[in-house]
Amino acid sequence: MSRRSALSSTISGRSASYAIGVDLGATKIAAALVSRDGRVVAEKRVPTEPALGEEAVIGRMATLVQELSQEASGPLAGVGIGTPGYVNSAAGIVQNAVNLGWQEVPLAQRLQAALPMHLDIWVENDANVQALGEYYFGAARGCDHFVFIGIGSGLGSGIISRGALITGATYMAAEMGHLSLDPEGRQCACGLRGCVETVVSGPGIVASVQKYLAQGRPMGSRLAAGGPLTPERVLQAAQEGDPAARAAFAEAASWLGMVFAAYVAILNPAKIVIGGGLGLSGFDLLVPDAMGELRRRVGAQSLEALQVVRSQLSSSAVGASALVWAAAGQDGQR
Amino acid sequence: MSRRSALSSTISGRSASYAIGVDLGATKIAAALVSRDGRVVAEKRVPTEPALGEEAVIGRMATLVQELSQEASGPLAGVGIGTPGYVNSAAGIVQNAVNLGWQEVPLAQRLQAALPMHLDIWVENDANVQALGEYYFGAARGCDHFVFIGIGSGLGSGIISRGALITGATYMAAEMGHLSLDPEGRQCACGLRGCVETVVSGPGIVASVQKYLAQGRPMGSRLAAGGPLTPERVLQAAQEGDPAARAAFAEAASWLGMVFAAYVAILNPAKIVIGGGLGLSGFDLLVPDAMGELRRRVGAQSLEALQVVRSQLSSSAVGASALVWAAAGQDGQR
Repeated sequence: MSRRSALSSTISGRSASYAIGVDLGATKIAAALVSRDGRVVAEKRVPTEPALGEEAVIGRMATLVQELSQEASGPLAGVGIGTPGYVNSAAGIVQNAVNLGWQEVPLAQRLQAALPMHLDIWVENDANVQALGEYYFGAARGCDHFVFIGIGSGLGSGIISRGALITGATYMAAEMGHLSLDPEGRQCACGLRGCVETVVSGPGIVASVQKYLAQGRPMGSRLAAGGPLTPERVLQAAQEGDPAARAAFAEAASWLGMVFAAYVAILNPAKIVIGGGLGLSGFDLLVPDAMGELRRRVGAQSLEALQVVRSQLSSSAVGASALVWAAAGQDGQR
Repeated sequence: MSRRSALSSTISGRSASYAIGVDLGATKIAAALVSRDGRVVAEKRVPTEPALGEEAVIGRMATLVQELSQEASGPLAGVGIGTPGYVNSAAGIVQNAVNLGWQEVPLAQRLQAALPMHLDIWVENDANVQALGEYYFGAARGCDHFVFIGIGSGLGSGIISRGALITGATYMAAEMGHLSLDPEGRQCACGLRGCVETVVSGPGIVASVQKYLAQGRPMGSRLAAGGPLTPERVLQAAQEGDPAARAAFAEAASWLGMVFAAYVAILNPAKIVIGGGLGLSGFDLLVPDAMGELRRRVGAQSLEALQVVRSQLSSSAVGASALVWAAAGQDGQR
């Protein structure tokens, strides 16, 4: 593919059939060549190994992008990247991505420099990218007002309002994992106490079980025996009725209900889409109780149109490819 | 003014020099003829007297609009109305306006029918209209991401994101006055308990003082003597250092800080604009403590760009006139 001007690439972007999505995680980089309708044509994964430095990580990404670009049988609209951290999406700069050890990396520019051909590249926070993915290809197709909440090793969220991402004045909107619901609560890695993700996340669930085991209430838990506590073990124990595991999920569900309430009161979404490993595997343990908490906190009128549903995105790289179509659409609106 | 087609009125709207703003309140209707740059050319007020029925109220509004339209020395772009209740702004329908006793009133259509000439009419919730007013003519000019919070007999708010109102999936966004922060708390008129406005409002401040007086702590208040408690008396007492009045404002400020935190975590605004009678008169008693609470609840990075400022709108009718320019702008974007 030859070098193109910004104008010609935007024009071809609108009629192009393929985009490359890249999910840059702390442990792996997942990339996919995805058609305009969300079909995965080819997929590749490599370990991230952030300890080797930015240059090495960006080099791996460039290799994946190049390989996938060769599999496209039609025009390629560009590359969308979902990454941890705060992202200045207008400039393609990743800020303060703690898991990668990145302070301030001009990722779009650096990746372009590592590629032999010009491609339009967009970068966005990973939870925002997942929200876009649900909007284009997943559980929120056709829904112009919704919130995505991903629950896994932390809690991330993304907001679509009037059919576009809300990123805020300084790209820090939807930062719900680090809203403190209890300033006297559990210490969070961010420096505050009682942040949402200290309770509503895999590590949060484990910490809650440890608290219940230490205080010996509720009684009768079998989780003290049988090896190290992991979110998976606690989930399975909760599904089997273990009282401490159940209490940990009930606590997380109550906090998740407060998160729902804040989102509903402020944004009046038609859907809340739940994703992430624990969000999906623990959906039935979390969402019914969260809905109970929500009903105590907002008026019934705001709930009439609300559905809480599971993520339907087949892979995070597919979500990242949606960033390309969203960016092309925004250009079109300007 | 003759009857015009929607198309011609939209075209003339963009080049028109004046708009009429109407603030429909439970006690008075305030209307103003306002120039494109926010200058009040003429102003009129009449009592609302909602007990006389919808027809009478709409008739009064029609008279005001007609009188003001005659004072315009150039083309008139239309009429913007701010009203209590939920507003289906696309259809101009007011729903569940408790203070007016209105269940479902197609206000735009009914007002048009009561006028002898055609005018484009837009209707929006009063707090949303005030947010627009701040954006066009007040404390948030040029600020595309901010929240307006009005504190008076209740707490209302409006959100501007990417330069436009957020109204949500069913016109119930920014319904922060009725988010419950304490489901075991004070009974709210809406049916829930512990809603934000049961504490952060004139009546909320009075109820808090009554609680402190009843429990005899903090001691030394002079508010038990000297006639009925009003928000004004409590405000003055707090300014003079009365301990019960101070405690009531401290409680309201702490809750207001939680409201700030939810807004900052979700929307990352550049400004929070405080308005309303008590919001302005009690600004110095509320905002510093609310900022303290906010800093316990969200990361410092989200606060770097945040300013909390006073409303600068000279009148609520001026805010309503902004609705006309906002609607004309949205037509232009479509």
